[in-house]
Amino acid sequence: MQFHTLSNGFRILTENMAGLKSASIGVWVDVGTRNETAAQNGIAHFLEHMAFKGTKRRSSLDIAESIENVGGFLNAYTSRETTAYYARVLQNDVPLALDVLADILRNSTFEPREIEIERGVIIQEIGQSLDTPDDVVFDWLQEVAYPDQPMGRSILGPAELVQAFNRSDLSGFVAQNYGPENLILSAAGAVDHDKIVAQAEALFGDMPKSKPDSLISASFTGGERREIKQLEQAHFTLAFEAPNYSGQEIYAAQVYALILGGGMSSRLFQEIREKRGLCYSIFASVAPSVDTGMFSIYSGTSGDQVSELAGLTISEIRRSADTISEAEVERARVQMKAGMLMGLESPSARAERMARAMTIWGKVPTLEETVAKIEAVNVTAVRGFASELCGRNSAAMALYGPVDAAPELPELLAALSA
Amino acid sequence: MQFHTLSNGFRILTENMAGLKSASIGVWVDVGTRNETAAQNGIAHFLEHMAFKGTKRRSSLDIAESIENVGGFLNAYTSRETTAYYARVLQNDVPLALDVLADILRNSTFEPREIEIERGVIIQEIGQSLDTPDDVVFDWLQEVAYPDQPMGRSILGPAELVQAFNRSDLSGFVAQNYGPENLILSAAGAVDHDKIVAQAEALFGDMPKSKPDSLISASFTGGERREIKQLEQAHFTLAFEAPNYSGQEIYAAQVYALILGGGMSSRLFQEIREKRGLCYSIFASVAPSVDTGMFSIYSGTSGDQVSELAGLTISEIRRSADTISEAEVERARVQMKAGMLMGLESPSARAERMARAMTIWGKVPTLEETVAKIEAVNVTAVRGFASELCGRNSAAMALYGPVDAAPELPELLAALSA
Repeated sequence: MQFHTLSNGFRILTENMAGLKSASIGVWVDVGTRNETAAQNGIAHFLEHMAFKGTKRRSSLDIAESIENVGGFLNAYTSRETTAYYARVLQNDVPLALDVLADILRNSTFEPREIEIERGVIIQEIGQSLDTPDDVVFDWLQEVAYPDQPMGRSILGPAELVQAFNRSDLSGFVAQNYGPENLILSAAGAVDHDKIVAQAEALFGDMPKSKPDSLISASFTGGERREIKQLEQAHFTLAFEAPNYSGQEIYAAQVYALILGGGMSSRLFQEIREKRGLCYSIFASVAPSVDTGMFSIYSGTSGDQVSELAGLTISEIRRSADTISEAEVERARVQMKAGMLMGLESPSARAERMARAMTIWGKVPTLEETVAKIEAVNVTAVRGFASELCGRNSAAMALYGPVDAAPELPELLAALSA
Repeated sequence: MQFHTLSNGFRILTENMAGLKSASIGVWVDVGTRNETAAQNGIAHFLEHMAFKGTKRRSSLDIAESIENVGGFLNAYTSRETTAYYARVLQNDVPLALDVLADILRNSTFEPREIEIERGVIIQEIGQSLDTPDDVVFDWLQEVAYPDQPMGRSILGPAELVQAFNRSDLSGFVAQNYGPENLILSAAGAVDHDKIVAQAEALFGDMPKSKPDSLISASFTGGERREIKQLEQAHFTLAFEAPNYSGQEIYAAQVYALILGGGMSSRLFQEIREKRGLCYSIFASVAPSVDTGMFSIYSGTSGDQVSELAGLTISEIRRSADTISEAEVERARVQMKAGMLMGLESPSARAERMARAMTIWGKVPTLEETVAKIEAVNVTAVRGFASELCGRNSAAMALYGPVDAAPELPELLAALSA
């Protein structure tokens, strides 16, 4: 792994992977839904779409063709804390991909006509998300976990706001958030560090320094949202606040999530699916952010089984606090280490890991450093996290579908601490 | 790539990939929904689930733990023509993964109690699929394309049939379809051919030869299914019969699908999304089978735009027959070649490609052979495929959501050939 910072703060990470003939290259921008005001909700995502709609040098079709003509892919995503633009191309096309990435990041024209068209596209994307029950229920979970704050808002934003964004809204958001200190170029695979640095210097070196905004800190509140709808499944989600990225605690929480609901051998999968057949999907996961984190559980079942499923979930969390074994912790540690090794065999996963680590910690930990943190998690720490969950007096719950029979959140919290 | 066949017909394909520390290993079974009678619909998929529910040597938990204890993943899928069971593990755990795969394929006990439990899981999986509009609409598309025949049935099967399968149904289906001539072991990554062959000989060499059933050949009929439902989006799908795997024609069809709706530079994406903003998702793809193929288009839009979207789709197909350019064909060829090269950098994609090729053609073409077939596609062939589509008097269409304003299929076919 090699690292370089341009004089304006723009950071560059590369990792050459022997034997590969392709590369993944992208720019990760340290901005997302959390950087929006309430009236701006959806603009980070809208902006990501507009990056593909034309620059001073390239039309929308030119952008698409530039990468597809050489057989590559160009894509982007927006999350609550990050916006990423990335390409996968063959070795010789890395300079082209970087040129296109710089162009769409720096020279987008935001033509009013293109904004109108893209508004329609995003309205359809919102419609598609609203027709996907687990997208809906996770958006609600986020909203009840962090009400009335940037962390709780949806990434796509509500249609009413998307209807209103204009060119100056978009340009203003770029000016505020797309400064060089907020950008990280990350490339893995068949890449040459020196060449990428030289090209990045030419493409991004003249960006004026800016003063990145600080985030409004997130405050996990919790609560419940339930909407009865005629669906086949009752979609059930439950979340607790979890550690953020910064300390050792996050590793215990991740081990716990794997043990409780991370795979086929996990407790929720075994008790609720394998022994009782109550669901097809069930999982627990932990999503850390810079200043908070969310430990969440999802499952879908029929309306007449949702109460049983919710009760079993709570009793599995309770039971885990006293019974998690050394063997389970060891399995979770091994899963995390092996998963990381396998992930590193993909250039896209590797480029993403480097960029995310740099955003979060200001450096990319070595494999050995990460392994040491995983190894340091013991049964006491994992049981401790579970015990502490059982004493919580706040959680977030979202329910969608035939969910009238599901218990209320205070009832579940009482059962958890009883 | 190395190949070996055991004396009972069981085939083994391996490919060592330099530099990798992990491997993907699986068994692809030449059986799927197409091997079911009407009364058996869903049993191939049910059986795939039961493989994880206990063998003579391992409980359901043992199966899960065996692979997850070493940090690997174990998974399976059922399609209309294939059932696959595969694992991703680190190098040293390849023998363990193969042992587990052989165990779940050969020694499943189908305990009646486990069958009852798994029935509940599959009923929930069906519910989840019914709550996912694009799953629903693609199942309908298949059904109207190939009515009253195995090719037209859903992979999960209807809940009524899933409610009734018992142990002897499952054992009978295995006896009929899981003979050694139907099994292909495929492994890529950090693998050693000789060791895998020796272990496979020990694990599968004693399977008695069997006589695989022949498939009921598929007959593309076409027709329309539309169901009005209160959804955000009108989900629109249209399909035509396409070439099967066997000839050169499939390559022209694949190039055409890329040009019409394969990426951001494709005609449907540019005309319908980029110029008019009518949708978020739109794509065309071609799915070949052994004796038929399906060329399909999907998009989702609002109810008041679905008629316009359907009309534009037809006019893009019409227009393409006369206007597809050498540059577009060249881009599609490059996309296919580069996509193949990038796919080969993933052990899972490589193992899957080898197994599928062996099932279809009885051999794995070299990269050069496949490239030659792609290179042989020219503008005349692609325009020819498009022209021929315009003359069709049968197609399949499925519509779901606020679709009352969508045109009827005969109207679209008339516009196509006008």
